[in-house]
Amino acid sequence: MSKLLIVGTVAFDAIETPFGKTEKIIGGAATYLSLAASQFKVDSCIVSVIGNDFPKEYLEFLEDRNIDTSGIEIVPEGKTFFWSGKYHNDLNTRDTLATELNVLANFQPKVPEKFKEPDFLMLGNLHPSVQMAVIQQIPKRPKLVVLDTMNYWMDNAWDELMEVLKKVDVITINDEEARQLSGEYSLVKAAQKIYSMGPKYVVIKKGEHGALLFYDGKVFFAPALPLEEVFDPTGAGDTFAGGFIGYLAGTHDINFENMKRAVIYGSNLASFSVEKFGTRRMEYLTKDEINRRLQEFKQLTQFDIELN
Amino acid sequence: MSKLLIVGTVAFDAIETPFGKTEKIIGGAATYLSLAASQFKVDSCIVSVIGNDFPKEYLEFLEDRNIDTSGIEIVPEGKTFFWSGKYHNDLNTRDTLATELNVLANFQPKVPEKFKEPDFLMLGNLHPSVQMAVIQQIPKRPKLVVLDTMNYWMDNAWDELMEVLKKVDVITINDEEARQLSGEYSLVKAAQKIYSMGPKYVVIKKGEHGALLFYDGKVFFAPALPLEEVFDPTGAGDTFAGGFIGYLAGTHDINFENMKRAVIYGSNLASFSVEKFGTRRMEYLTKDEINRRLQEFKQLTQFDIELN
Repeated sequence: MSKLLIVGTVAFDAIETPFGKTEKIIGGAATYLSLAASQFKVDSCIVSVIGNDFPKEYLEFLEDRNIDTSGIEIVPEGKTFFWSGKYHNDLNTRDTLATELNVLANFQPKVPEKFKEPDFLMLGNLHPSVQMAVIQQIPKRPKLVVLDTMNYWMDNAWDELMEVLKKVDVITINDEEARQLSGEYSLVKAAQKIYSMGPKYVVIKKGEHGALLFYDGKVFFAPALPLEEVFDPTGAGDTFAGGFIGYLAGTHDINFENMKRAVIYGSNLASFSVEKFGTRRMEYLTKDEINRRLQEFKQLTQFDIELN
Repeated sequence: MSKLLIVGTVAFDAIETPFGKTEKIIGGAATYLSLAASQFKVDSCIVSVIGNDFPKEYLEFLEDRNIDTSGIEIVPEGKTFFWSGKYHNDLNTRDTLATELNVLANFQPKVPEKFKEPDFLMLGNLHPSVQMAVIQQIPKRPKLVVLDTMNYWMDNAWDELMEVLKKVDVITINDEEARQLSGEYSLVKAAQKIYSMGPKYVVIKKGEHGALLFYDGKVFFAPALPLEEVFDPTGAGDTFAGGFIGYLAGTHDINFENMKRAVIYGSNLASFSVEKFGTRRMEYLTKDEINRRLQEFKQLTQFDIELN
């Protein structure tokens, strides 16, 4: 079975959408990433940091899904990273109400010994120097390194971001971030510029408008499933990325045809994630449900045309 | 061969984009619609109105493409409808600089005798009462009636729009207009509400984000082809609709599988239209180019997944 190492936040979120609001609930990029990847046959391990306020039962819940949590450092006197946000009516935009870094402020990632040779490495959205610190603990280059990042690091840690981009195979970012990173409005041109920064594959997440996979002059598009109701978009991008790398790790195959399937699986899983607040929907999602939705993706996208 | 009747504007446009600006050039919904439809084996006819300032050579050019222009009334002392607009840097939004209705102000459509029994009817974006006046000249319901409209008529001619919607099979609108028409944010729910207004098929155009086809609980998605350069979006929606109905008319088949192909062809043709100012690209587009791009659409969307 492939070893998948996931680096990212394990956190508390408080979320407000037009449909309701939550108290502090479980969140964090690594949580969403690992829950999505756990739908595939992989040995996953999270590298992260939490405070002593984080429920031990949730770590056990992750362990029960074959997610190794021994790389999640627990700071005895610390408090877990907390984010709070409020979505606007269209759910496409949100205001951050609070960001309390807490234990994340001094996070020094430590990769557990048994995951120092991962086959797949997922660098969740974190300071690029933290992402680099993980890469430096891994002596042999993994089969595939996927990095997620955001505009904040482009504004505040450009040089560090450029350094870590040289070390990765795939970058996942949203369309506005791709434009900011490349200085190009056309996503085709943006991908070409980003290749020159390091990643051979560029995955551009467009939320309700789907996702594009660019590689070597080729492009593939996975739509988002049109849904009657989107309840909470939090974590959708991480769920997408977790489904993407989880599928690749589960099949141990990174050729382009398989990458296409991986973005479809990413979009598939993300379409569930948004149906409930936080990680709730991902916690009881079954393979049967995923397979049924895969049929919907086929009906949504597949056509049969002979040339004129 | 199917008879396709197209009602819409034949106009002059002056366009400014970040890449340049034009003097008065040929434009209008019916022009784009008919140029796109002329790529398929159909007998088309335009119903419209122009002034004596419109070049006769362009009518001859349309006639050469098997587009009957006998339904284009020429008002001897009149001036042709003129629209001028300036696109913003992202090309997704634009400001209207001038709208001179001219001969369009008193347009009373007259369907030529030999097109009074069309197989396919395309009602381009016009006042709903003008669209209705065309329907009333056609004694036998066509195989398919497609209507395009816009937010302006929702704001200013709601009752007339509701009346004409009862008479059509397919509506093509953009996502914001679908939301305005239905009062629903979710496009899935919007389509359901719009069904109850008359159309059995709802085509939602999302510009660079592709197009959705809704019918009877089913949904199909045609992406827009990611392009290196988009030069001028003017007429892309009409080119899409013209490709859609042109393909259906050319194949004389309106089952849902064929409608899927039709939205792919619509998106295919629209991807060319935006490559040059105005109608320029559509005027020398060849079937070979369309077929090559069809292969690109297949590569963009087609995947092969077995269930886990």
